[in-house]
Amino acid sequence: MFVLKAGGKKEYFNKKNIERSLAAIGLDAKIAKGLSDEVSLRFKKSVSSDEIFRFVISRLKSYGPEFLGRYNLRRAVMNLGPTGYPFERYVAKVLEEYGYRTKTNQIVQGHCVKHEIDVMAWKDKTHLIVECKYHNTHGARSDLKVALYVWSRFLDIKKKWEEDPGHKQAEFHGVWLMTNTRFTSEAVQYGECVGMLLTGWGYPREMSLEKMIHDKKLYPIDIFPDWNGKLNYHKLYESEISLLRDCLNFSAKEFSKKSGLKEVEAAIFQSEALRLIGN
Amino acid sequence: MFVLKAGGKKEYFNKKNIERSLAAIGLDAKIAKGLSDEVSLRFKKSVSSDEIFRFVISRLKSYGPEFLGRYNLRRAVMNLGPTGYPFERYVAKVLEEYGYRTKTNQIVQGHCVKHEIDVMAWKDKTHLIVECKYHNTHGARSDLKVALYVWSRFLDIKKKWEEDPGHKQAEFHGVWLMTNTRFTSEAVQYGECVGMLLTGWGYPREMSLEKMIHDKKLYPIDIFPDWNGKLNYHKLYESEISLLRDCLNFSAKEFSKKSGLKEVEAAIFQSEALRLIGN
Repeated sequence: MFVLKAGGKKEYFNKKNIERSLAAIGLDAKIAKGLSDEVSLRFKKSVSSDEIFRFVISRLKSYGPEFLGRYNLRRAVMNLGPTGYPFERYVAKVLEEYGYRTKTNQIVQGHCVKHEIDVMAWKDKTHLIVECKYHNTHGARSDLKVALYVWSRFLDIKKKWEEDPGHKQAEFHGVWLMTNTRFTSEAVQYGECVGMLLTGWGYPREMSLEKMIHDKKLYPIDIFPDWNGKLNYHKLYESEISLLRDCLNFSAKEFSKKSGLKEVEAAIFQSEALRLIGN
Repeated sequence: MFVLKAGGKKEYFNKKNIERSLAAIGLDAKIAKGLSDEVSLRFKKSVSSDEIFRFVISRLKSYGPEFLGRYNLRRAVMNLGPTGYPFERYVAKVLEEYGYRTKTNQIVQGHCVKHEIDVMAWKDKTHLIVECKYHNTHGARSDLKVALYVWSRFLDIKKKWEEDPGHKQAEFHGVWLMTNTRFTSEAVQYGECVGMLLTGWGYPREMSLEKMIHDKKLYPIDIFPDWNGKLNYHKLYESEISLLRDCLNFSAKEFSKKSGLKEVEAAIFQSEALRLIGN
């Protein structure tokens, strides 16, 4: 059986891939094996990775919202943009949980030109410019050209800072490229060589974007696929509710008003949120 | 009347723009004024820049192929790619006429990563990497991000060259960004500030891409709009015929074989080529 990937590539179906991704979300190994067996029996000849995803999601429902949410994380982050919450604002939220002060969408004067910087981040003596590279398709990767232009941008800004006698010379200036997708190997090789921080899907293994999110339970509010059609994102973002945990600051009645859900639905949503966050 | 530009912008119709572009191709000022009057009478409310272009082309036919060819240059360069002749090979041809030795599509090792360089160019003590940015739509511009990544690429390669004791230290290393469209003002500002050579449509005024082409009569073989459907580009490029003047190296009979034109057509084509190149 062939799997048609989002980027247009075709590869042999491998049960181990599904088992590995289900193990990563904490599903019992036996259940994971049973589920991957089901997939290999259900589909013949060729199947898109999207069909597999939807099938697995439908099966995961019986094991609880915490598995659903974790399995859906990559898509939930990707869908934030289309729901009206730009990726760079989400990145800023994540960084704040890791102790950074942040400002989004800043115009910064470089030595040669002005630059629009997605996120400026400060922590202790460290001052970072953060470029957030959002892609809305799965197969997309952040490639060498992105790493190259981000590095020139940083050099231009750094030069201006160093020219300015008022700027604190003791500060460490750095640049961080964050993406919701994977990097190409050339982008990683270049970024590591010049000394750029890189965070993307699955990279770096010990502190990838999904790990940063999981570790501090920073799931976005659109994490549960079944609730997507029901939540009023516009209202939610107006009330500064963009992370799942934000919904827990309100009574079901209050959250109902802010989300467009009926009160009983709001209560169910909150209970599912608690199961994902509490676990 | 409004003009709908290729990039999606809308602007007021201004007869002076047409008169200026017709003056630039050497058309008599009175004729140019008459033609721009015709345009303003013919079209009502709104017109696309493409419609204006086709109308002017149809009128220019009566004044001779040399005016047609010059007026069509931008599109002819843009269409080279789709006919099977990559922009970087055309750029290399142009550079050779300006005294450079060239190599296209080279893999060059930088300090951090390998880079694919469109054109490498040498002249006296100067050694340049040339990045060719081709766009297939009129409204497109080469923007700041392009200039930024090209500069990082150059720095990475330059660093590697400087590390290599065998590399001639006396050489001047530079980078040249060439495009078939315009640059954004930020790209120009940045490129000039860091010391990158920039050549595009209309830039720099004293030696823009179209001026480089006009001055040495380096019109591409697809310069005449009316012949587009008749020329067999695949055959022509196989015979190393990519510039208009190349057709003059052959008898009408020989050129007929190489172009797919009938012999009598080949002779007419060659006479038109001579009128454009001879003028």
